[in-house]
Amino acid sequence: MITEEKYKKLYNKERQIIDTRLASLLKNRKPESLYEPSAYLLGNPGKRIRPFLTLLSAKAAGSSFGKVYNAALAIEMLHTFTLAHDDIMDNADKRRGHLTLHKKYDLSTAILAGDSLLSIAYEYLLKDLGKDAKPVIATFTRSLIEVCEGQSLDKEFEVMKTVSLPLYTEMITKKTAIMLETCCTVGAQIAGASPAVVKALSGFGKNIGIAFQIQDDLLDIAGDEKSFGKNIGGDLVEGKKTYLFIKALEKADAKSKPYFTCMIKNKGIAPAEIPFYKNLYQELGVLEDAQKAISAYTNKALKNLTVIQDEDNRDLLIRLANHLIKRTN
Amino acid sequence: MITEEKYKKLYNKERQIIDTRLASLLKNRKPESLYEPSAYLLGNPGKRIRPFLTLLSAKAAGSSFGKVYNAALAIEMLHTFTLAHDDIMDNADKRRGHLTLHKKYDLSTAILAGDSLLSIAYEYLLKDLGKDAKPVIATFTRSLIEVCEGQSLDKEFEVMKTVSLPLYTEMITKKTAIMLETCCTVGAQIAGASPAVVKALSGFGKNIGIAFQIQDDLLDIAGDEKSFGKNIGGDLVEGKKTYLFIKALEKADAKSKPYFTCMIKNKGIAPAEIPFYKNLYQELGVLEDAQKAISAYTNKALKNLTVIQDEDNRDLLIRLANHLIKRTN
Repeated sequence: MITEEKYKKLYNKERQIIDTRLASLLKNRKPESLYEPSAYLLGNPGKRIRPFLTLLSAKAAGSSFGKVYNAALAIEMLHTFTLAHDDIMDNADKRRGHLTLHKKYDLSTAILAGDSLLSIAYEYLLKDLGKDAKPVIATFTRSLIEVCEGQSLDKEFEVMKTVSLPLYTEMITKKTAIMLETCCTVGAQIAGASPAVVKALSGFGKNIGIAFQIQDDLLDIAGDEKSFGKNIGGDLVEGKKTYLFIKALEKADAKSKPYFTCMIKNKGIAPAEIPFYKNLYQELGVLEDAQKAISAYTNKALKNLTVIQDEDNRDLLIRLANHLIKRTN
Repeated sequence: MITEEKYKKLYNKERQIIDTRLASLLKNRKPESLYEPSAYLLGNPGKRIRPFLTLLSAKAAGSSFGKVYNAALAIEMLHTFTLAHDDIMDNADKRRGHLTLHKKYDLSTAILAGDSLLSIAYEYLLKDLGKDAKPVIATFTRSLIEVCEGQSLDKEFEVMKTVSLPLYTEMITKKTAIMLETCCTVGAQIAGASPAVVKALSGFGKNIGIAFQIQDDLLDIAGDEKSFGKNIGGDLVEGKKTYLFIKALEKADAKSKPYFTCMIKNKGIAPAEIPFYKNLYQELGVLEDAQKAISAYTNKALKNLTVIQDEDNRDLLIRLANHLIKRTN
């Protein structure tokens, strides 16, 4: 059995290794005008959940961490590439307390550093591949394709009046969940897992990814400002079509509906209105709906783990899932 | 022997097939907000030199066109991805007479359509690969890495006072020549060529690529405005560190040097000054220098072709090289 303490010890150890390797892998590359901004971006402290999940997935499929370490770093770079370009599209000033790339440098640098990180991601992925390269590259590439599609859908949502729950689910599956799914699939594929194990681990990653995004939507309104690291109610201010918003619009009665229609029309609300809208959400019970959806997707994710024979390896993935879902930030 | 007529017939035929396939390959993909702009970009009529070179290289290495067609399209998509992002960085309004993506749509769409084209490029490349995937993906990825480095160097040049000829050559090798090199390498690799043949064809592609870029620099001042499709002297107006400029600065005497220093200081010249600077270039003989360099790199490229046994296949590559170099647009 893997205790919480044991899990945390392993996570902290690997996170440090991941950080160290990410911090050094662009060193000595030229030109500096390209790799210095990329290194800044990669150095932005993250939870490194994706590479850690890749390691655990490979381990669950019978491999050592060492066999997939470069692939794990590659997925973190793929993720970081999406952040750089998303931040430009969202015109974001900061990410995790640090200036975004296009604010610290300029637009050209941010576009190019993103592109370059993606190129280095493929380079690192290849390091862990041999004759098995094709299916793994296909998984990684599918992830890149879907992330672009998901981001495009998300941009579409900004100008759409209403968004259906299935379309929302498609968007977060492509924009967020695909990346966690890819961690699991790539880890399992490089480990040489059977198709059944690859499929199960992919299913785990995908569903935990969907739960993770709905949790993100929930934290925007129910989270603790300090540990969340973003302003509470930011999604409301921006008029984002989140899980909560979609459910609220679905459940709204004659009394509350005009407030949501107004929010759509004005593409958001004033910060002063956040408590009022939070109250509306509470009255409509959409915070509980979100919580239920998170539980449902988490359970769906965990069911996949029955194929993993080794109890410890299964425990590690369960603990990671619980950390992802119970996180407050 | 391949006559000019026969070459042109083959080129026109394949160009049409390439155009047709590029025009259809994003159809029916969703979301439209992503793939419609990407399709617009891919449909922008180009000479399709890169995919054609990929086909010819594979043929020279003993393969049929059919075996590398998807890879050929992949390289055109990789090239088109770079154009989309370069146009943003250069704040270009038009390309080949068509509005650039960020002008026709918006910044976010242009970034994302570029990213997406790159993702589809990898998808198409994989279609032509089997157990041999790794080295081909490595070639393609190296190309992506170097294109980013080359573009970054090119941006650096904008704020540098002087650029040495070796640094200029490094920049164009990475930004331009690598892509033609990749066409040849990928074509030869998928064809299953021996390392010696792969190396020779790569060398052909690289050197013809360098010649191609110097030719581009030369056409900016010596070309025919109508067929060149750009304004003559545009590089001078923008103060670009071209082959001609670097050579001119190198050869300038006390009388002419201040004009170039002034151009550096002002980051370009006024359009009315173009004839004056063209005259300076002529006096310093840098148009001839460029022509000589083009010939030297072309000869270096062609020497590589001695490894190609089949005369017709060799002729096709020679004809393509001559077309690239003798082009007026």
